[in-house]
Amino acid sequence: MARQRTAKTREEHEVEFSRIVAFSDGVFSIAITLLILNVSIDGSAVTRDGLWQALWDQRENLLAYAISFAVIGRFWLVHHRFFGEVTAFDNRLIGLNMLYLGWIVLIPFSSQLLGDYGGQTPSVIVYAVNLAVVVLLGLLMSSRARRAGLASGDVEDEREARFRALFIAAVFLLSIPVAVVAPNYAPLLWLVLFFDPTDRLLRTSVWR
Amino acid sequence: MARQRTAKTREEHEVEFSRIVAFSDGVFSIAITLLILNVSIDGSAVTRDGLWQALWDQRENLLAYAISFAVIGRFWLVHHRFFGEVTAFDNRLIGLNMLYLGWIVLIPFSSQLLGDYGGQTPSVIVYAVNLAVVVLLGLLMSSRARRAGLASGDVEDEREARFRALFIAAVFLLSIPVAVVAPNYAPLLWLVLFFDPTDRLLRTSVWR
Amino acid sequence: MARQRTAKTREEHEVEFSRIVAFSDGVFSIAITLLILNVSIDGSAVTRDGLWQALWDQRENLLAYAISFAVIGRFWLVHHRFFGEVTAFDNRLIGLNMLYLGWIVLIPFSSQLLGDYGGQTPSVIVYAVNLAVVVLLGLLMSSRARRAGLASGDVEDEREARFRALFIAAVFLLSIPVAVVAPNYAPLLWLVLFFDPTDRLLRTSVWR
Amino acid sequence: MARQRTAKTREEHEVEFSRIVAFSDGVFSIAITLLILNVSIDGSAVTRDGLWQALWDQRENLLAYAISFAVIGRFWLVHHRFFGEVTAFDNRLIGLNMLYLGWIVLIPFSSQLLGDYGGQTPSVIVYAVNLAVVVLLGLLMSSRARRAGLASGDVEDEREARFRALFIAAVFLLSIPVAVVAPNYAPLLWLVLFFDPTDRLLRTSVWR
Repeated sequence: MARQRTAKTREEHEVEFSRIVAFSDGVFSIAITLLILNVSIDGSAVTRDGLWQALWDQRENLLAYAISFAVIGRFWLVHHRFFGEVTAFDNRLIGLNMLYLGWIVLIPFSSQLLGDYGGQTPSVIVYAVNLAVVVLLGLLMSSRARRAGLASGDVEDEREARFRALFIAAVFLLSIPVAVVAPNYAPLLWLVLFFDPTDRLLRTSVWR
Repeated sequence: MARQRTAKTREEHEVEFSRIVAFSDGVFSIAITLLILNVSIDGSAVTRDGLWQALWDQRENLLAYAISFAVIGRFWLVHHRFFGEVTAFDNRLIGLNMLYLGWIVLIPFSSQLLGDYGGQTPSVIVYAVNLAVVVLLGLLMSSRARRAGLASGDVEDEREARFRALFIAAVFLLSIPVAVVAPNYAPLLWLVLFFDPTDRLLRTSVWR
Repeated sequence: MARQRTAKTREEHEVEFSRIVAFSDGVFSIAITLLILNVSIDGSAVTRDGLWQALWDQRENLLAYAISFAVIGRFWLVHHRFFGEVTAFDNRLIGLNMLYLGWIVLIPFSSQLLGDYGGQTPSVIVYAVNLAVVVLLGLLMSSRARRAGLASGDVEDEREARFRALFIAAVFLLSIPVAVVAPNYAPLLWLVLFFDPTDRLLRTSVWR
Repeated sequence: MARQRTAKTREEHEVEFSRIVAFSDGVFSIAITLLILNVSIDGSAVTRDGLWQALWDQRENLLAYAISFAVIGRFWLVHHRFFGEVTAFDNRLIGLNMLYLGWIVLIPFSSQLLGDYGGQTPSVIVYAVNLAVVVLLGLLMSSRARRAGLASGDVEDEREARFRALFIAAVFLLSIPVAVVAPNYAPLLWLVLFFDPTDRLLRTSVWR
């Protein structure tokens, strides 16, 4: 499938390049905003006391909203940083980016599942698989771009980014067997990501 | 969590900077447009006389739409003005902006609550808390940016903006106890914001 | 409420200016895309013969989609052309633009009403009022901008644009009494807009 | 309807031109993201075993999501490439682009139909007609722009793009009679597009 012949440099095709970025930003911002549609109070009449109860019933949806907003926001940040280093693009990079976005847009669905059926094996697995695929596709995209000479960027940074991506994907994939035996506890495993061992190992930052 | 080491200047990272702004604009414009989804006539058959009635039943949703459109529009304006003064950005500014956007996207949910259960304590409190948090996060973001030397802007303007933000947040927080005893009247308190005492006190303008 | 003191020129505040345009474009593009949510086949099981029937039942929603897509697209075009002539902006222009956008976002709601209750007086009136208000607000915005020296543009073009806006608003407002006595025929009156008498009178073009 | 008198060049009207592109990108990115709304698990309580079943029941919706995401992504790419060659624009190009976008926004509806009633004649026909119209409108738009001198671009590339567009449209139109007799098999015909005979015939690439 190595159909691409020549890469287009960013300087010479600034408009095309910025449209790829703008389209990606559009998809990210819509996906992150659609998350709120998963939180809603049923229109059926609730009494005064019942409204606090109805809000309390949304606690898992609100939690899923907060987690997924942070997750998509973080993915956007990584995407944003990666494209800041891209100096040229070819058709495969565009194709991979499209595939990547396709899995980003799945997150609102997986998130709804997690909010509605949080303590159940299937929803935890679907969410974990979705996020792991996004991370691995992001890694594939950036590795390929660097190998093809389409992105600048420090070799050290590249190694570190790869390490972190594999670590994140591993945590999500590991949570799958945990979800089979103890679906309620699998999401707790994800909290490991907040400690960011790569930070300690590699002396770098989550938000960097 | 002071993980950030160096700020990136706006001139040197124009593409990255404009992506942050574009992403924020995307989120604002989607959130403001989703508000209309809260207004809808139930698909169940209504007779000719019934349609005026059904529209009349939407008056609170339409009011909530108008208020929340103005509110998000105003927040966008403040955000827009603040980022017009930003000269450099670091990871904490990006992180705070993401958190801020997360609370902006909650507004369509809070607004729906207000439209559907306008006269009830919980919906008024949720709406007031949502807006107060947005105002305070905006203040935190701009104060921190100014302290870290990431934003230009007059010291006088800064003082005035802080005063106004605290005033707005205070009005919303004050409406919470009122909502407990008289939920129907709490939103009237918000009308104080239209008079904008900061304008008189500081000789400046709401829309400036 | 003449709180604004100095207008900002477009050249000196290019980023702020382009954000206003980008935000408006975002709102327009989301509003136009949300229209499709009004067209949908009910999820209840339909038989093979029933699916053609179910599609046929959507003909009014599809028609409302087509009309409203053309309408919002046309408004976007006018907005786009107007902002192409704007050379400076002040707070009132920003405020009027926000109000204008608030009525644009109402169109998906009015359109849904028209699609669901096409032959009824209230839906025709709501749609006509919505579009008339958009046209008049657009006229107000552009007249005020020209008077305040915020927009360049030919005086002849300005006169012509005002004439056209008033004509369009008049057609919509005239269709209101018609809708009271013959709601099924009122929308036919709107077809007059396709002939665009201003074109003949003023020798200009609808799409110009 | 040849009302347009003079084309505006891209250099002289960069802001207007980039707004057309930005508006189009906005519509594309929202349409592609709305696709996910067609995938959802019914809120009615499902048991633990039932959740896997409920996910399995979404397999056709997920397939329709994947296909339509790829389809809209591909259309965006073609649109993106075409506008990369546009050097001037007139009102007819803007009008055609708006009509084109109107059919792009229909795809989420057609896709939902395909996901919900995949094995039935009407849904296959609607989907095939929708995509064929998009392809033909895209061809009309680019042919007209090239004839009117609004787009640069190689004559060879133009011939090839026309050939490919006609081929794609032909496949979709051919699938219509197949859908009448064997709706389950008609979508298989679309797989022909993955082999891209134009690629072999003309030695070019799908993603080029």
